[in-house]
Amino acid sequence: MFRVGIDLGGTNIAVGIISGSHEILSKISVPTFAARPWQDVVSDMGDAVEEATAQAGLSLSDCTQIGIGSPGTCDSQQGVVVRAYNLGWYNVPVCQTLAQRFHVPVKLSNDANCAALGEAVAGAAAGCRDMVLITLGTGVGSGIIIDGKIYAGMRSAGAELGHTLLVLDGEPCTCGRHGCWEAYASATALIRQTRQAQSAHPESLLAHTPPQKVNGRTTFDAAKAGDQAALEVVHTYARYLAAGLTNVVNALAPEMILLGGGICNQGEFLLSLLRDYVTENCFGKKEGAIPAIRVAQLGNDAGIIGAAAL
Amino acid sequence: MFRVGIDLGGTNIAVGIISGSHEILSKISVPTFAARPWQDVVSDMGDAVEEATAQAGLSLSDCTQIGIGSPGTCDSQQGVVVRAYNLGWYNVPVCQTLAQRFHVPVKLSNDANCAALGEAVAGAAAGCRDMVLITLGTGVGSGIIIDGKIYAGMRSAGAELGHTLLVLDGEPCTCGRHGCWEAYASATALIRQTRQAQSAHPESLLAHTPPQKVNGRTTFDAAKAGDQAALEVVHTYARYLAAGLTNVVNALAPEMILLGGGICNQGEFLLSLLRDYVTENCFGKKEGAIPAIRVAQLGNDAGIIGAAAL
Repeated sequence: MFRVGIDLGGTNIAVGIISGSHEILSKISVPTFAARPWQDVVSDMGDAVEEATAQAGLSLSDCTQIGIGSPGTCDSQQGVVVRAYNLGWYNVPVCQTLAQRFHVPVKLSNDANCAALGEAVAGAAAGCRDMVLITLGTGVGSGIIIDGKIYAGMRSAGAELGHTLLVLDGEPCTCGRHGCWEAYASATALIRQTRQAQSAHPESLLAHTPPQKVNGRTTFDAAKAGDQAALEVVHTYARYLAAGLTNVVNALAPEMILLGGGICNQGEFLLSLLRDYVTENCFGKKEGAIPAIRVAQLGNDAGIIGAAAL
Repeated sequence: MFRVGIDLGGTNIAVGIISGSHEILSKISVPTFAARPWQDVVSDMGDAVEEATAQAGLSLSDCTQIGIGSPGTCDSQQGVVVRAYNLGWYNVPVCQTLAQRFHVPVKLSNDANCAALGEAVAGAAAGCRDMVLITLGTGVGSGIIIDGKIYAGMRSAGAELGHTLLVLDGEPCTCGRHGCWEAYASATALIRQTRQAQSAHPESLLAHTPPQKVNGRTTFDAAKAGDQAALEVVHTYARYLAAGLTNVVNALAPEMILLGGGICNQGEFLLSLLRDYVTENCFGKKEGAIPAIRVAQLGNDAGIIGAAAL
């Protein structure tokens, strides 16, 4: 049998028809136009489901379930998007609305959780029972898989690992707290750290990039070209990232930690620094329960594959 | 049917016979004498099982399972105590040894995990599916219950929440890392903070206690008597403790967090400070998934009740 996976984003809605072996049979993407009433967005989601189904040469009666990954806080049990700031959604009964149209069960979880589940069923963590996906972007997103299922805690509000502390009273975080891991290890934080190094080291290669053009690659490119100031930024950033990973290891001892987001394109250049730090600092040191630390494989497809597997 | 719960400690071995409704029918305690060969300790554990069974008016054929809570790192799947420094045990096959004697299944978990399970099945968290027990003693111990079962991760090495960061590069921790929650929120840390305040405030009530007699109550007693320096220590300590609890809330969103250990005898005087901080700082603030924060109920009995429930 087949399932439908929907990755609802602030910009686009991606819909995929997924086989029983987690393969994508068809996939389409439509703009969200999030400023509209939510009913219109959900209506377009439904149209996209029909289109993707037809594209796969199927009818909706071939699909046993629809799964949705949404940004923000989702109440999986009620099927309600509680708060999604980038959609402007508050208490939207998305599951009920789609279920009334299609007469199949509709499930919902946070998009980071769905991405983690996607990687656990069909990606770099296939076969892992306990794994964590950390996504490095504007923030530090996370999804926790325990015993093969999403763990999200009370009212699906957990797994906000980006909002655990690195430094009490440290850098301000978007959540209102100071010193969260996200404020040190997100792509946004790396860009801030790179700009600080530009100012402090006008002689470095980093200073060749206009500050407003700095991105997550800037310091890695300069470091690989041998620039000392850039290399220091890389090492400082890797240490922040790895200190948070060490917290994850000590708290949850997952079999595997996957990293997603553009920064992970740095591959082994970054991963080897992370593994060294975790091994030296985790509980029990090199005799500790050190997980495999790898790059996620499925990219944006993780969301629809995971949503379908809810 | 009945089960046997064993709480193996560095000083004493407590054995209880536990009913199907988690009541203690009999309980005995014998000294561990941990310096002996482990075989002798396990032999005494077995004798204590027989004695407790007889005391309950039962025979061992009435007991379907033996559960053991041990200090240190335990491999629950292999039934082996991997490392327990205060016992001097390394790779001790305790389950196999007792199973050969009694011909019933023998299960094993870390003592902090067993205490959490005990509270979840029969204590202050009875009925909770997802809960965390934090024990404030020499260190900060923790047990995580997810979906009614102990979650301990790979090789049962997880749930070391005391060894997640409060302050990167902060106070030295027993684990070799710097800045762990344990180094700020354990009873040991509170005693250190109290002694620092004694030196800094020789005019305070705190200075009436000889430094070597400072314990976890000293600063609370002086604070309740209106001493300003002591009150500052209480507030600082509560803030450290609550910052770590906020991390637990953001990471795991449990329904309930229980606090154990002598410091919790301070009850609402301490708990109200913790609840206020968590509400002001957790993800989503007062709309977040704020758990009940309460004091554990079962004391030392949590270990044997939880071990029996493994």
